Amino acid sequence: MSVATDMEQMAVRARDASRLLAGASGAAKDTFLAALADLLATRREAVMAANARDVEAAKAAGMDAPRVNRLTLTPAIMDAMAAACREIIALPDPVGGIEAMRPRPNGLLVGRMRVPLGVICMIYESRPNVTIDAAILCLKAGNAVILKGGSEALESNKALAALLREALAAAGLPADAAQLVPTSDRAAVAALCKLDQYIDVIIPRGGEGLIRAVVDAATMPVLKHFKGVCHAYVDAEADLAMAEKVIVNAKAQRPGVCNALECLLVHADVAPEFLPRVGSALRRAGVTLRACPRALPLLGEGAAPAAPEDYGHEFHDLILAVKVVDSMDEALAHIHRYGSNHTEVILTEHHGRAMDFLRRADASMVGVNCSTRFNDGGELGLGAEIGISTSKLHAYGPMGLVELTSAKFVTLGNGQVRG
Amino acid sequence: MSVATDMEQMAVRARDASRLLAGASGAAKDTFLAALADLLATRREAVMAANARDVEAAKAAGMDAPRVNRLTLTPAIMDAMAAACREIIALPDPVGGIEAMRPRPNGLLVGRMRVPLGVICMIYESRPNVTIDAAILCLKAGNAVILKGGSEALESNKALAALLREALAAAGLPADAAQLVPTSDRAAVAALCKLDQYIDVIIPRGGEGLIRAVVDAATMPVLKHFKGVCHAYVDAEADLAMAEKVIVNAKAQRPGVCNALECLLVHADVAPEFLPRVGSALRRAGVTLRACPRALPLLGEGAAPAAPEDYGHEFHDLILAVKVVDSMDEALAHIHRYGSNHTEVILTEHHGRAMDFLRRADASMVGVNCSTRFNDGGELGLGAEIGISTSKLHAYGPMGLVELTSAKFVTLGNGQVRG
Repeated sequence: MSVATDMEQMAVRARDASRLLAGASGAAKDTFLAALADLLATRREAVMAANARDVEAAKAAGMDAPRVNRLTLTPAIMDAMAAACREIIALPDPVGGIEAMRPRPNGLLVGRMRVPLGVICMIYESRPNVTIDAAILCLKAGNAVILKGGSEALESNKALAALLREALAAAGLPADAAQLVPTSDRAAVAALCKLDQYIDVIIPRGGEGLIRAVVDAATMPVLKHFKGVCHAYVDAEADLAMAEKVIVNAKAQRPGVCNALECLLVHADVAPEFLPRVGSALRRAGVTLRACPRALPLLGEGAAPAAPEDYGHEFHDLILAVKVVDSMDEALAHIHRYGSNHTEVILTEHHGRAMDFLRRADASMVGVNCSTRFNDGGELGLGAEIGISTSKLHAYGPMGLVELTSAKFVTLGNGQVRG
Repeated sequence: MSVATDMEQMAVRARDASRLLAGASGAAKDTFLAALADLLATRREAVMAANARDVEAAKAAGMDAPRVNRLTLTPAIMDAMAAACREIIALPDPVGGIEAMRPRPNGLLVGRMRVPLGVICMIYESRPNVTIDAAILCLKAGNAVILKGGSEALESNKALAALLREALAAAGLPADAAQLVPTSDRAAVAALCKLDQYIDVIIPRGGEGLIRAVVDAATMPVLKHFKGVCHAYVDAEADLAMAEKVIVNAKAQRPGVCNALECLLVHADVAPEFLPRVGSALRRAGVTLRACPRALPLLGEGAAPAAPEDYGHEFHDLILAVKVVDSMDEALAHIHRYGSNHTEVILTEHHGRAMDFLRRADASMVGVNCSTRFNDGGELGLGAEIGISTSKLHAYGPMGLVELTSAKFVTLGNGQVRG
């Protein structure tokens, strides 16, 4: 049988399971999560043995150390998956609530009821823990999920998916609500991308190449996040001590993540005072600076001239681009040109410019006097997230449980007709 | 220069204009709408003359009467476009409001600010008034719009687009916020579908063929509505007098629209009493019935046996499919199989089944004891709408001004950093 036929049958099963899951009680979904947390402890050896086979094969195939590291499940990661299940139990069920029920002039009560999206297809790369972390969010939001992980993690993912299905069955929920694509055949992704009749949304997580391929092929909506090129603009009226603390945190607290700072923009009026102090603070934190010609002499030793490609670049490392601007308009123009709609912050005590920046910066999170690192589901109060959307349709920013649902109109009448 | 290059340049201009429009005040946008309403009156002759050229060419090319009718602008339609401008002035500006601003434990204030989507591409067919009706909603929501109408309406659309641009300029807004694709070259649509770097969403309005082609080609999100196959289920405990009134209204009040009823499902317990009375009421309203074997003998003369393809069919006419079912579960199974996620209603006085149907029926509007005809932006309280989304991503149901926006996270801090 062809991969395309296999994928279609899998999608049909997911669609059928999604109908059942959409009507499941919050209690049943939480029973599933508790059962899964237990299985992640009691079946740990089996999962780690499967992972060891993946890791061994990857090393034999010459995979580089960072990728082997991402592929490897440790006891701490197993614990974290179980903890994630328990955290999601604590979040309220997003499904079935009705928002803003109000009467129309004819007496018809109109509101919006939260409903699951239906079937979500997750396509991801190395880390096997995504199999659990993504699936449990989708399932708590009442969606069936089709999981397509990296081929190098296939054995690990099969072991984890078996736990998902066992926990679903233990809670009286359909096991087909969580299905792993059991092949590393690349044709599987191409086939899934065309099944818009059954799959409501695809969420790719990984490098730009993977995401671009899914966006180009998919006939259903794609929730995506290409990259995080985050800027901070230090205004002429910034509190410079606060700005220094925030910039160092935004760049250096965890440089490998998408909400880390990649480019610092400083108003010319405060550059002579601010750049020397922030430059030495950043150097102490291990950060290398790549600066425009105006910033370079103010940053002291160790700073290098910025190349054109350093702007708009996601370093994912302890490297920061720096540029002096003459106005907030120039800073916003730079952000519009080089930003990635992820996170932009302003440091200022000037109320008018703070409000203006808040409105005009085009990003999923825009902040005043805070670190870019707050663009995160947990930090913004959504709980666990499945990724950060940098396009504006459906969700913009971290996607938590509510962002994995939709809302339908519900109307309660007593015989209303249209005249 | 190629059509693809032309389209890319148009999209770049739209992107630039969208930045300016995103920051425009509600007052400026309302000034534009008032100016446009005036121009639709003062320039009426020029528009109608352009339209007469389109109509003449269409007739010469042998276009059928219903399509010529859709293409023709009448004084009443011109008045309706001007009235639409004034109605939208009365709606509040959706942009810039901040929802649910709440403090996090660290004192960071987190909320969500409504922002425009950016650039919207509308692709539509015959009716030239869509050029105005769609554009004014997109623009009031702060979006730039690229308009691609039917080739048969090109002269009419050019005349209307000229008014849009003149009114934008009169209000101090960028004329490039409204651009008409000035060619009937089909390559233009193909090119637009690939410009996801500049265009945030495509909204196709027209037949299934047009929509399918856009969905298959587009690399950006598509907000679509394939068809409306709406059902009403008359439960064993329905108020039959109310049910009769609602069914006749849902089918016959305006049969050519997407929220008209296409299939009546009746519980077997009340079929012997209900079908004869609703059958004669529907016949009096001019409706032809296509019935299952159990319903057929109860409907009296004039009813014909339903063919399999009558289920799941959008008649757009005074024709209704009828089927007897033994339970609400059977009704919901029929709806899941044949429905189009548009509108489903139940007629019942049984509270438990009403609530169960509300949750389980999978459609953009689910109603209890009311006509399907209420699935409409105006009736549901959204004001004017740009269409009804039958997929769940971003919007589900009528899309008004708010559905033409997104929401970004905004954070107001006083130096917060992550620990």
